[in-house]
Amino acid sequence: MTTIADVAKMAGLSRATVSRVLNNHPNVTEEKKRLVRDAMERLNYVPNSTAQRLRNQKTDTIAILVPVLTNPFFAYLLEAMDTVATENNLQLLVCQTRYDREKELNFLSLLKTKQVDGLILTSSENDWEIITEFTQYGPIVLCNEYSQVVNVPAVRMNNTEAAYRATRHLIEQGCRKIAYSYGEKKSSVALEREDGFRQALKEHSLPMNKSWIIRNVYDIEDGRGALNYLTKLSERPDAVFTGSDQVATGMIMEAKKQNIHVPGDLAIVGFDDQPIASIIEPGLTTIAQPIKQMGTRAMETMIEVILHKRELSYQEILLPFELIVRDSTNRFSFN
Amino acid sequence: MTTIADVAKMAGLSRATVSRVLNNHPNVTEEKKRLVRDAMERLNYVPNSTAQRLRNQKTDTIAILVPVLTNPFFAYLLEAMDTVATENNLQLLVCQTRYDREKELNFLSLLKTKQVDGLILTSSENDWEIITEFTQYGPIVLCNEYSQVVNVPAVRMNNTEAAYRATRHLIEQGCRKIAYSYGEKKSSVALEREDGFRQALKEHSLPMNKSWIIRNVYDIEDGRGALNYLTKLSERPDAVFTGSDQVATGMIMEAKKQNIHVPGDLAIVGFDDQPIASIIEPGLTTIAQPIKQMGTRAMETMIEVILHKRELSYQEILLPFELIVRDSTNRFSFN
Repeated sequence: MTTIADVAKMAGLSRATVSRVLNNHPNVTEEKKRLVRDAMERLNYVPNSTAQRLRNQKTDTIAILVPVLTNPFFAYLLEAMDTVATENNLQLLVCQTRYDREKELNFLSLLKTKQVDGLILTSSENDWEIITEFTQYGPIVLCNEYSQVVNVPAVRMNNTEAAYRATRHLIEQGCRKIAYSYGEKKSSVALEREDGFRQALKEHSLPMNKSWIIRNVYDIEDGRGALNYLTKLSERPDAVFTGSDQVATGMIMEAKKQNIHVPGDLAIVGFDDQPIASIIEPGLTTIAQPIKQMGTRAMETMIEVILHKRELSYQEILLPFELIVRDSTNRFSFN
Repeated sequence: MTTIADVAKMAGLSRATVSRVLNNHPNVTEEKKRLVRDAMERLNYVPNSTAQRLRNQKTDTIAILVPVLTNPFFAYLLEAMDTVATENNLQLLVCQTRYDREKELNFLSLLKTKQVDGLILTSSENDWEIITEFTQYGPIVLCNEYSQVVNVPAVRMNNTEAAYRATRHLIEQGCRKIAYSYGEKKSSVALEREDGFRQALKEHSLPMNKSWIIRNVYDIEDGRGALNYLTKLSERPDAVFTGSDQVATGMIMEAKKQNIHVPGDLAIVGFDDQPIASIIEPGLTTIAQPIKQMGTRAMETMIEVILHKRELSYQEILLPFELIVRDSTNRFSFN
C-alpha cells in the first residue's frame, strides 16, 4: 500500500508538509501543493483509504494518557502520535494524569464507557494489575513505560542499556564519583535506568554512594535544588547522570551561578535530547530518545489492532537510542 | 468560602503541594501531609464541596482546544487550567487542532454530542461566525485569542499594548530599523501585536519596511531560517520584535553561529517568557504573559458558568503583562 511517506519522498517534501496539504492547512505554498498533488496522482495514493476501513468504529478517537504536558518529552511524543492519527483520520484525546491515580482511573474509564476506541499509556500511576482490568473494554498499547503483566504491545527503548552507556561515558571521561537523579520511584523507566547505572559502576568497581542518589526531581527548578543539595555534601560527586534534560539544565544554570565549572568540577548528562540540550551552554550530553519513532510505532500498533481486531498480547517493540556527546561532559579538552 | 489557596497559606505550602496531598500523590512527605490536614481542620475546609454542587452535570469534563502542545505557552496554560479543574473535580480533555479547521470542527462537536460540559478555545482556525454556532450546545470560553462576535467571556492580555511597549523599548535602545515576525496571519493575537508595533514606529517616525515583516514562523527552526533570511537582505534591520520566545531563541542560536552580535548587530525581543528565555545566552528580553493567571481565570470563569448556568455574553477579562529586560536588547552596556 502506498503511504504518505512515499508521497513525501516522491514530492521531495517532508511528511509534515504532505500532511499539511492533505489537511488544507492555510500556510502551504501553491508550489508545494502542486508537488504533493502530482506525487499523489503518480503513486495513485488515496488518502482516506484506512479511514474508510475504520468506518465501523464508533468514535475514531484514541485517548493518550501522559503525566505532564510541560515536559517536552510528552509533547513531542504526542506530536508524533497525532501525525499518524491524522493520516488515518483518527483524533486524539490527550489526558493529563499529573501523576495522580484517581485521574488515571477516570481516564481509563473512557474505554469502559466507549468514549474512545483505544488508549495509549505513556506512564502509569496505578498498579499494572489494575490497568490490566481495563483491557477487557478495549485495546491498550503501552509506550515508554511498560510491563509484561498487562499483556499488550509495548513500544519503548532499552533504558537499562542507555543508562549503562551514559554512565560508562562519564567513567571514560575520568569521573569516579557519580551521582544519579530520577523522578518517579516505581516507574519501569526509572528502575531500568538505575539498573544500568549500577551495572556500569559495578563493572568499574566504583562506589554507589547513597547520598548521591536524588529522588523526585522532574523539572528545571528541581535541578537547581539538586545542584544546591550536592554542593552542600561533605563528599561531593564529580559527575551526575540525570534522568532528564530539564533537571540537567537546571543543574547547569545553578552551577554557573555558583561558579562551579561544568564539566571541570561536575560533568552532567541529561536524558531525551530536548531542544534545551543544545540551547544551554555548555551543551548538554544526553541520551537521544527515539521520541518520534516511539510515538509513530505506538500509534501504528494501535491502528493495526483496531483494524484487524486481533487478540492483544505482550509484544516488545524496542527502538534504538543514541548517546549525544556535548560539552557538559567533555573533560579532556577542558583539563 | 474557604479555598485551596487559604489552606495553602495557612499550611505555609504551595497550592500545588496542597493539591498533591488532596489527590493522594505518592511523592509528598508525611510532614507536608500533616501540615495540610491541620490547616484543613482549622479552616473547616471540605475539598469536594464544589464538585458536589456540580453533580447534576453529566461528564465533569471540559475540552480545551490548543493548536500545538510542543509550544510551552500552551503546555503551561493547560497546567494552570488543570490545577483549577482538579480542585473542582473536573477533568480536562486536551484537543490539539494543529492549526487545522477540520480538526477544530471535530473537537467543537464534542459539545454537540454532550461528551463534554464546556469548551475553552485558546486559538481559532475557523471563522468566528462558525464557532458562534456551537455556543447553542454548551458553554464556550475564549482564552488568549478572542472575538466579540462569539459573545462569550474572553480571558486575555492586551497584545497591542505589549507589542507597543516591546517596540518602544527597542527604540529606546537606539534601534531604528526594526523587523517583526509572527505566526498565524489572521489570529487576533497577531493582528493586535502588529497594531502595537506599527503604533510605536509611527510615533517615532520610523519606517515600516515590508521586507522586514516575516510571516509563518513558529518554532526554533523557523527562527534560524528567519535569521538567515534577514542577513541576506541588502538593507538589514538592527532589531527584531518576534512574537515568540521559540523563534527568538532560534534567531539567537543562528546569530551566534554566524558571529552576528546580539544585541550589538541585532537586538532581539521574544514573547511569553518561557523557560528558554533565561536559558539562552544572551538572556532574552521578552514579554512575560500572565499564563498562569490566564489559565486560572479561564477555568474559573467556565466553572462559574457551569455552576450558575447563566446566559453567556461578551465579557473582557484583561490581565497584566510585564516587559522583562535581559541582555538580548541591552545595547548600552555593549556599546
